[in-house]
Formats: sequence, structure tokens, C-alpha cells
Amino acid sequence: MQYGFGVDLGGTTVKIAYFDKEGTLLTKWEIPTDTSSGGRNILPDIAAAIEAFIAGQGVPREEILGVGIGVPGAVDKAGVIYGGDNLGWGTFSVKDVLTELTGLPVAVGNDANVAALGESWMGGAKEFQNMVMVTLGTGVGGGIVVDGQLVVGAGGGAGEIGHMTLNREETESCGCGKRGCVEQYCSATGIVRMARRMLEKREEPSCLREQEQLTAKAVFDGAKAGDALAMAVTAQFFAYMGEFLSNICCVTAPEVILLGGGVSKAGAFLLEGVRQAFGRVAYHAHLDTRFALATLGNDAGVYGAFKLIRG
Amino acid sequence: MQYGFGVDLGGTTVKIAYFDKEGTLLTKWEIPTDTSSGGRNILPDIAAAIEAFIAGQGVPREEILGVGIGVPGAVDKAGVIYGGDNLGWGTFSVKDVLTELTGLPVAVGNDANVAALGESWMGGAKEFQNMVMVTLGTGVGGGIVVDGQLVVGAGGGAGEIGHMTLNREETESCGCGKRGCVEQYCSATGIVRMARRMLEKREEPSCLREQEQLTAKAVFDGAKAGDALAMAVTAQFFAYMGEFLSNICCVTAPEVILLGGGVSKAGAFLLEGVRQAFGRVAYHAHLDTRFALATLGNDAGVYGAFKLIRG
Repeated sequence: MQYGFGVDLGGTTVKIAYFDKEGTLLTKWEIPTDTSSGGRNILPDIAAAIEAFIAGQGVPREEILGVGIGVPGAVDKAGVIYGGDNLGWGTFSVKDVLTELTGLPVAVGNDANVAALGESWMGGAKEFQNMVMVTLGTGVGGGIVVDGQLVVGAGGGAGEIGHMTLNREETESCGCGKRGCVEQYCSATGIVRMARRMLEKREEPSCLREQEQLTAKAVFDGAKAGDALAMAVTAQFFAYMGEFLSNICCVTAPEVILLGGGVSKAGAFLLEGVRQAFGRVAYHAHLDTRFALATLGNDAGVYGAFKLIRG
Repeated sequence: MQYGFGVDLGGTTVKIAYFDKEGTLLTKWEIPTDTSSGGRNILPDIAAAIEAFIAGQGVPREEILGVGIGVPGAVDKAGVIYGGDNLGWGTFSVKDVLTELTGLPVAVGNDANVAALGESWMGGAKEFQNMVMVTLGTGVGGGIVVDGQLVVGAGGGAGEIGHMTLNREETESCGCGKRGCVEQYCSATGIVRMARRMLEKREEPSCLREQEQLTAKAVFDGAKAGDALAMAVTAQFFAYMGEFLSNICCVTAPEVILLGGGVSKAGAFLLEGVRQAFGRVAYHAHLDTRFALATLGNDAGVYGAFKLIRG
């Protein structure tokens, strides 16, 4: 049997998992992400953790397929990262450096893309060769899988679906500097932003006015409880989601769209609202698109990272 | 040497081309598309034309790789067409029927997708593995190529980029039944529609008021000559194009976007306007996207069709 590692590099911790070739997650652990000194210790720390594990388990090195890693930043097909968002990294070949450090084959991808690959391989889209994963968290990220392969794109820029334009009339700026991005409406923070605007614009009473700290969950809970203002916010959210996702379908026509990230904890309420909104605006050829929730949670990244090196 | 056929099935004529394996177009000819009797004669006519050519040339059948064909309708990976738009066809396996009729291997794709594959293989995107072709004609069609392969999608629904939503406030319907599709603004007919609206809304004199039949070319020519109203129409067109194309980049991040179809006869004026508009709204990771004109013209379809069977 052959084995390998899937690594998910986050801003505060690095998740490392050890898999057999079939994709069974045998063990996993975390190490802190050392962002000091421009992040220069991160890859050596990961290499040391893997080396210690191999030595501790007494695994023959010829049984190790290699290391796959998802990193927060755009990564091209050659494993070059173009500025790691929170790591202080510049542009360099993560693949070359980690190969040198570990003496093992290395494959590198963008973290959101890699999580999509994990869900496509072993999670919510397991039976499908063509899928899109949409991660609705603080921001909106994603990944596109076509014929079982991750779409990487020029400079690793594929799957940046959170920065599709939804509203060219928007007056506030997205974190990316553009205006009217999907992320400004469909992320957890976007939902809160829409709720705040609605609370300012309208004077009716609402359970949302009593919240000390307004959250996307409070908005969904309010809508489920029949609060009119919360329902207006979720209606706007769903309309944006429907348009956003139908536009993606016009490009790659996935068989299934998976919803993940913190906002997806709303579960059936989210899925049903998205399905209905999509049905109202989708092109007729895409009306059979399936919607499902991501199932691997925080493990999607390590699964996808291992799949990168496993092939 | 091996040879093969590329067939481009249009509403009025069928283009048939004979290639060597390297992609040299050796000869091409046309036969009429017989849309009588629900289009049932079309595939037999094509098979007969190919058979007559093989017999006439005395080509040994073992030297024939097969027949690739682009057809007007959504086609899935198995070669099943889901309703041929202008042919009277229902849903059936074009691949199975044409294989039976010719006794040769057959590959089938959507005509717009197949033209994109042709441009990607031998035309304006020859050096690139990741491209998008946008055909701006009576409608807006296209094709998506990732890692040198056509993206087909569920039910053959990929590349339907003319039906991405650009304007959810639109009051008129697109031919597809939706409202606010790209096609309503960026096609030749869409440009004329925008010009008519602008002529109604504004009272200023314009060279466009003197046109007996308003065309996209007249709008572009007017803008180039400094006509203020025509310039306002092209500004709106370019703004829509920039947003539309930057949204596609967020999905697959092509290295190059090719512009083809009748509207692309505007050449450098179109390219420059699209480049500028794109630069204003694109996500930063996509700012290096190249723009170029399609180069194969009406032959793109037969090149791509042959590439389908050649692999």
C-alpha cells in the first residue's frame, strides 16, 4: 500500500493528514502557523512535522507518494504562489521549496480550490465529475472541477467566484478594491451588511434590532421565525445567489453545486432558498443542476491536498 | 498519414472539410442542409457526401480517423443532442446515428463550442491551453477550453455565456425567455436594440437617425466618427462586455479571450474598447488576460470538429 500527506495551510494553524492511497484518512494533527519573519518558518515547520511523523511511524520512504498542500493565495499549475494573503509571502515556487525540504514529491494548490477538489473526490460531490464548490464564509471562495480535474487557470486565478460582479451600482468597496462583488452580498459579512442597510432604510420593528452583535445566523433565524425585515434580507441574499450561481452554470455547467463554509450551517433553509432562486433565473439548459451541502467540513482541504499529489 | 473529416452543420449549409492528422485543411466543400421532414435527411446526406468523397479519392478506409461534427444544440459527452435549435431535431444520439451511417468513428459537439476548440487548436489562441472564445453575432455564443480540452458540462450546457445575466432590471425578454442576458446587449442585434433605446430617450441629433436600417456597424462607425449618441451606445456596450468577460475570468481564468462573429469585424476598435473596459472592472488576478480576434472565420467550426475526433 502507498501513503501520502494532505496539508491545509491556514492563517493560524496548519492541518496535516496522513492518508492511504484509497483516500482513507488514517490520522491528522495540527501545528501552529508561524507568521513571524515574513512566514519563512512555515514550510520548514511543515517539513519537520512530516519528517518526524515518518520517522516515528517507521514508514519506508518508498511507500510515500508525496505531499499535497493547499495554501491561501493564487497558485499556478507549476506550484508558484502569487502573494500569500495572510502569510507575508511574496511570489515563489512553494513546490520547489517544499520538495527541497522534504525530499518528497509535492503538489500545490489554492486552499479554496483544493477544498473543492476534496469535496469532489470524497465529499458531497463524490459521484460527479463536474462540480462547483462555493464556500460562503467571511468571504466567498470556491473551486471549479471539470472532468474530475481542478480548473487552475492563468496564474491560478480560476475559482475566484467571490469577485464576480453582481451589482455595478454598489457604492461601497469590496476588500479586493472592486465594487459590487458577490462577496459583498453572499458572505456572512455580506449578509450582515445587507441587514444593516435594510435596518437603516426601513423603520419597522424587527428582531434584528435587538441583536447586540448582528450575525448571518441571526438573520436566517429571524427569517425562519417570520420576521419581515429578516425575510427581506434573505430574499435579497437568495436572489443574488440565484443569479450568481446561474452565471457560473453558463460557463462550466456543473452537475452539482456544493455549498460550504459557515453560512452553509443554515442547511436545508439555505439549500431550499438557493434552489428556488436559481430556478427563477437559470438558463433552461441548467435547470437540472443539483444543489447539496459540503460534507467534509474542515477536512475538505486535507482530502483535496492529498488528491492533488495522488492524482 | 492519417486523415479525417470536420463537419460544421449550420441551418442552411453543411460545411465539410478533409484534413490530414497534422491539421492541414486539404479540401472543403458545402452541401445544403435539408431541414424538411424534421431534419431526418441531414445525417444521411452528410454520410453520403463523405462516402462519395472517400470513394472518389480512393482513400483506404483504414487511413480515416473518423468524423467530427459540430451541431446547433446542446450536446453532451456521449454525443447526445438535446433538441437541435433550427433543425427540427429532438433528443437522440447524433454519435450513434452517424456512426451507423458512415461506419466510421464519430465525435459530436455543440457548434459554438467546437468553433472555440478550432480557434484554440489552430487559430487565434494556438499557443494557449486555457481560452474562452466569445462569438458576437446575431446572438452571443462561445466555448470554454481548459488545459486544451473543451468544457462540455452537464447536458452539454457549458459555454452558454450569452445567457449570463447582466441586468436584472431589464424589461424586455431575451430569445431564451430570461431577462437581462448578455445576448440582449452584446450581440449585433443587442447593440442595435441599445441604440434604438438611446435614440428614443435622447433628442440630440445623431448620424444614427439617418440610417434606413440601423446596424451594429453603423453604431461603431458613428462612434469612431465622434457621433456623441453612437459613442454613448458603444460605451454602454463596452461596459457590459468588460463586466461579462471579467465574470467569466472569475470562473476559469483563461489566458486569452478571443472575440469572433460578425461584431468582431470592428477589429482593433472592438479589441481596444473591450480591453479598457475589462481593465476597469476585472479582479486583480485577471488583469493580465490577453484579448485577440478569432482568425479562422467560418472555418473555425470544421477545424474544431476535426480536432474533436483527432483528440
